[in-house]
Amino acid sequence: MLYLVGLGLGDAKDVTVRGLEVIRSCSRVYLEAYTSILSVGKEALEEFYGRELILADRETVEQEADEILRDSKESDVAFLVVGDPFGATTHSDLVLRATKAGIQYRVIHNASILSAVGCCGLQLYNFGETVSIVFWTDSWKPESFYDKIRRNRLSGMHTLCLLDIKVKEQSIENLMKGRKIFEPPRYMTVNQAAEQLMEIVQNRRKLGEELAITENTICVGLARVGACDQKIASGTLQQLCMVDLGGPLHSLVISGCMHPLELDMLRQFAVDPSNFDQINVEDSSTYLSV
Amino acid sequence: MLYLVGLGLGDAKDVTVRGLEVIRSCSRVYLEAYTSILSVGKEALEEFYGRELILADRETVEQEADEILRDSKESDVAFLVVGDPFGATTHSDLVLRATKAGIQYRVIHNASILSAVGCCGLQLYNFGETVSIVFWTDSWKPESFYDKIRRNRLSGMHTLCLLDIKVKEQSIENLMKGRKIFEPPRYMTVNQAAEQLMEIVQNRRKLGEELAITENTICVGLARVGACDQKIASGTLQQLCMVDLGGPLHSLVISGCMHPLELDMLRQFAVDPSNFDQINVEDSSTYLSV
Repeated sequence: MLYLVGLGLGDAKDVTVRGLEVIRSCSRVYLEAYTSILSVGKEALEEFYGRELILADRETVEQEADEILRDSKESDVAFLVVGDPFGATTHSDLVLRATKAGIQYRVIHNASILSAVGCCGLQLYNFGETVSIVFWTDSWKPESFYDKIRRNRLSGMHTLCLLDIKVKEQSIENLMKGRKIFEPPRYMTVNQAAEQLMEIVQNRRKLGEELAITENTICVGLARVGACDQKIASGTLQQLCMVDLGGPLHSLVISGCMHPLELDMLRQFAVDPSNFDQINVEDSSTYLSV
Repeated sequence: MLYLVGLGLGDAKDVTVRGLEVIRSCSRVYLEAYTSILSVGKEALEEFYGRELILADRETVEQEADEILRDSKESDVAFLVVGDPFGATTHSDLVLRATKAGIQYRVIHNASILSAVGCCGLQLYNFGETVSIVFWTDSWKPESFYDKIRRNRLSGMHTLCLLDIKVKEQSIENLMKGRKIFEPPRYMTVNQAAEQLMEIVQNRRKLGEELAITENTICVGLARVGACDQKIASGTLQQLCMVDLGGPLHSLVISGCMHPLELDMLRQFAVDPSNFDQINVEDSSTYLSV
């Protein structure tokens, strides 16, 4: 049996009781290490689970899936994923390979940022399509996520923006020279995401587009959701360019139309509580005018 | 401290290790009992947690919130919610009351159907707005959810439909006579949801509307997601009117535009694998023509 076990969002203790039983009973335990991270490292997990973990980076999962599945018809193998196992595409591929090889699989679900984001007080029912914001480079500045946020917002929906993670990236020089030297991991902050979004807003303004999002749109920055030191900050897009939310992982939410109860919840996390209601009034009027 | 603890989706063992520690250490433990259910009852949870649980129905949470929060400045109180604590609106209200009273709160996240639905193989990133389908009565047959599904589908997005739950409902007779006698709980099945949707499709066809959803649209029925006996069935809307998925809770997904990998996953769960690819071709052509 192949077990896909979600680890949740915070630290080692966020695994479920069933998940922990599975981890302790499997003959091999892999830890997927490229779509998300916990606030603790592999060693802390190994100590808590009482098991040695085999790190599975993107290369391993994509190219050595057969090794992961080896013997799993006769014995049990666990594949651990931060959050819920079906957050990222790659794991469908692993499941399909297992099924093709006649290996049964079972999923042990856990919290995912896609539902845990509800902790900021915005209703999950009012979220539209989720978007990903990637790190821009000097020559590559995709804006497509903006149009999705715009579409959600014009329908009154909130947007969860998942922020880029770069692990095991090689510099162009090392890549060209075939040197397996990797850059330090990079995790996009709410500040970086907000700045990229501000730049798009400014570009679109120059083009004369009617703006559904402005510097004053109410957004929410979330950091380390589910961990003991999680942080949530609400404010204008401009305010979120400056707020300090600490270490990774960060997520950004762009608000749509808000129910009074949603506003009451967001007010708790306001960067500047004194003018929070004022900016909401301004924001709604901008967005209703489009 | 007020702890809002998610219990996940299956049975007692789907609580997280941290959640279990909290439950065992709190002075009072409430179990929210109206937005969702686990496949096991209160007694099984009490035995596993080693704690007595106080059932909190909608009335208790809405009208006796102060009793739930009593003494939680000095001692710890846990409020248990099936799935993730922020799936339903009512709990924002409890959190705001706590904050107003100067009581700190902490959320212990867990799996929610909103992310666990990914186990059917449809990518979570490709879901649009979530809708709720309510039980129709002879005189009340709301169709608004259809228009949301239609909007998602025209953008190529999948739609998760949460199906109605009726607990502690009174018959009109008992209500009028002021008798606190409650009807047995009712949980909408995938069959019932599919039938209601079929009726709307037929109504809209009569009105001459161009249909984005037909009897042949590929849908997915899910039952008891996360439990040992979970069932997933994919097929046309018409096929899902007949499929037997067993006991509650059920959810229904209406597909949008599908990636080949998503189709490969859904094929595993096909009601009729022999014609699954054929129906997909027919379905896509209907929907692309609108």
